[in-house]
Amino acid sequence: MSMLDRAQCEALDASDPLAAARDRFHLPEGVIYLDGNSLGALPKATARRIDDVIRGQWGDDLITGWNKHGWVDLPRALGAKIAKLIGADADEVVVCDSTSLNVFKLLSAALALRPDRRIILSDNGNFPTDLYMAQGLAQLLGRDHRLEIVAPDAVIDRIGEDVAVVMLTEVDYRTGRRHDMAAINARAKAAGVHTLWDLAHSAGALPVDLNGSGADFAVGCGYKYLNGGPGAPAFLFVARRWQDATQQPLFGWFGHAAPFAFETAYQPKSGIDRFLVGTPPVLGMAALACGLETFDGIDLNLVRQKSLALGDLMIRLVAQECPDFDLALASPVGAERGSQVSYAHPSGYAVMQALIARGVIGDFRAPNLIRFGFTPLYVRYRDIWDAVAALKAVLATAEWQNPALNRRAAVT
Amino acid sequence: MSMLDRAQCEALDASDPLAAARDRFHLPEGVIYLDGNSLGALPKATARRIDDVIRGQWGDDLITGWNKHGWVDLPRALGAKIAKLIGADADEVVVCDSTSLNVFKLLSAALALRPDRRIILSDNGNFPTDLYMAQGLAQLLGRDHRLEIVAPDAVIDRIGEDVAVVMLTEVDYRTGRRHDMAAINARAKAAGVHTLWDLAHSAGALPVDLNGSGADFAVGCGYKYLNGGPGAPAFLFVARRWQDATQQPLFGWFGHAAPFAFETAYQPKSGIDRFLVGTPPVLGMAALACGLETFDGIDLNLVRQKSLALGDLMIRLVAQECPDFDLALASPVGAERGSQVSYAHPSGYAVMQALIARGVIGDFRAPNLIRFGFTPLYVRYRDIWDAVAALKAVLATAEWQNPALNRRAAVT
Repeated sequence: MSMLDRAQCEALDASDPLAAARDRFHLPEGVIYLDGNSLGALPKATARRIDDVIRGQWGDDLITGWNKHGWVDLPRALGAKIAKLIGADADEVVVCDSTSLNVFKLLSAALALRPDRRIILSDNGNFPTDLYMAQGLAQLLGRDHRLEIVAPDAVIDRIGEDVAVVMLTEVDYRTGRRHDMAAINARAKAAGVHTLWDLAHSAGALPVDLNGSGADFAVGCGYKYLNGGPGAPAFLFVARRWQDATQQPLFGWFGHAAPFAFETAYQPKSGIDRFLVGTPPVLGMAALACGLETFDGIDLNLVRQKSLALGDLMIRLVAQECPDFDLALASPVGAERGSQVSYAHPSGYAVMQALIARGVIGDFRAPNLIRFGFTPLYVRYRDIWDAVAALKAVLATAEWQNPALNRRAAVT
Repeated sequence: MSMLDRAQCEALDASDPLAAARDRFHLPEGVIYLDGNSLGALPKATARRIDDVIRGQWGDDLITGWNKHGWVDLPRALGAKIAKLIGADADEVVVCDSTSLNVFKLLSAALALRPDRRIILSDNGNFPTDLYMAQGLAQLLGRDHRLEIVAPDAVIDRIGEDVAVVMLTEVDYRTGRRHDMAAINARAKAAGVHTLWDLAHSAGALPVDLNGSGADFAVGCGYKYLNGGPGAPAFLFVARRWQDATQQPLFGWFGHAAPFAFETAYQPKSGIDRFLVGTPPVLGMAALACGLETFDGIDLNLVRQKSLALGDLMIRLVAQECPDFDLALASPVGAERGSQVSYAHPSGYAVMQALIARGVIGDFRAPNLIRFGFTPLYVRYRDIWDAVAALKAVLATAEWQNPALNRRAAVT
């Protein structure tokens, strides 16, 4: 394979059909941001929109904003926008709470659909909070429910008629390995097992086809590829066939059939609204709306193509520029990969600190992974060149051994 | 009793020790806002602070903001500020999630402390979502837990050795009736019952003494008297003696002993942090911080004095100005009242719409209550005069019978 240089990367940028989308974001000077899989960059529209919500809506219209400005409708309105990104219908998605809490709700709902079974199947590549929520629910239920954790590639064969739910994160937060959602859904359906997908590292990064692949339940995160801001509200999906056939146990007034009748007894609303709990966080919702608008007019197939191309470029450039260092590729090659590339390095934490000090922001995941995420709306091919050049410089000079580089791990 | 006039109300404003606090808020021209018990007014500091968080922190520092700007510490930092308002220690309060979800967490924790008992005692003045959360939890547990709802004045005598938890909202959202927290806590303690208080209509409106009165658990709302903005995050309190003796079932990574070690098994952190679940909503948290700062240097005893004085003034002026209309006082007189006054009127909904059309914003609660909340930091005595004058005008001209006045009920 011929050697690549920076000019070739610039040429890729020049012919990139998504290149103009970068202008939708504020990106600080001198920074190469490869951590949009942890916290998406700031859309340019956000600051002004939030200022308007604060001063023009809350400040001037006070309580009347709930109706006048549609605050009460935000969970559904934003859900409808996300639905388009994940292959769902508009009335199958709502924005609410955190990913963790949404896992709890939907896992409860799924277990209730299979009262005869006790096993929640997951894998050791799932994000820990999903596993924790399952453990908490199983313990609370006290009816011998059990979380069974297998290796990612053992999941599909383990799906059987003793399993109630298979709960997986589609794209592994550490390695970027992607599950075959359609195959798992098909196998699950054949065994009478319901599926709960965490789309934290999928939604906005690649086309997801929940309904086309027969998924039952899904959750996802607002602050990664959806660019909703730190701690943005999360979302959940319930296939229409299950919405009225089950319910979740966090009976809150926003899930009530008549929340403003202030009745004493809970009566769930029909449809997806019964998966809501408390009052919608308006500021966070408004910021997430701006994040979702960065996808307006964007073809997710182009996003996926570019995401894979950026990752392939990184893998090729690291092989070309950094062959002599102690880096081991930890991500799959090709379409089995989500939108990130990770490398194992014995001193991964310090290496990443040195990269950040040089303005190349990725992140570290225990025990030894450095992780680079690709957000095709704002990451350029030349950024990959520059990031690998920085990585080479860090490793060649061993500047990562500088003990002053120390910092707590960031939030995924 | 002598007749009052507006000049006397203005004189009360002139000698009000809290008068200067009004300048901490943005209040629209021509509006008298008596709904701070539903959504607090906008602090002047908020818009600029949030703009700085968005542009200066998220925009420029991206993922590094979690540590650089202390985002991860917000639940504790804001909890410590709220602790001062509710008679708790700094390490007994965290800000997180919604009031509803926090009820679920603490009710679960409280029930786990009394596995021998099955009754959750509450009253029919409790806010419905609290009752719903209890119903959802009882149903999920499937172990014959039962929510028993009695009249507010029957609660104390019903507390007995068959009750696991008594769960009450201190101040009734409809009538403003206030429970005697100290008496109920004492009775509960004698019967081995744990207490869970909802401070939605208390925190910031009157001094609360959780530890002095022996409370076990409490929750509260960020968007009412704490001025955190629409859907602001809520808070929860766990007395230190119970923090490590129990846990809540929503096992999220922010409650884990080592959230960034990404371990597979949940291990709760020691202390109040185990009551956290998902990633903190940074924008909502930052806005709530501004809301809490409106209490800096404020003596809550003065807040309480003024709150009662505003309510007494309203009751006196309504009696003086509106004796001939179909208004029935639905709130207690004197210290048994929180920070609001409510009246029953057969056409309460339409009356409130007509008032709002005149710029006097209170709200309506089914079946027939019009509700006026007093936020002593920004409501003036003259506002009460003007509100009652508007009420008189509405009722005297029957302008509330205008069928064009129609609007969905607002969020409490």
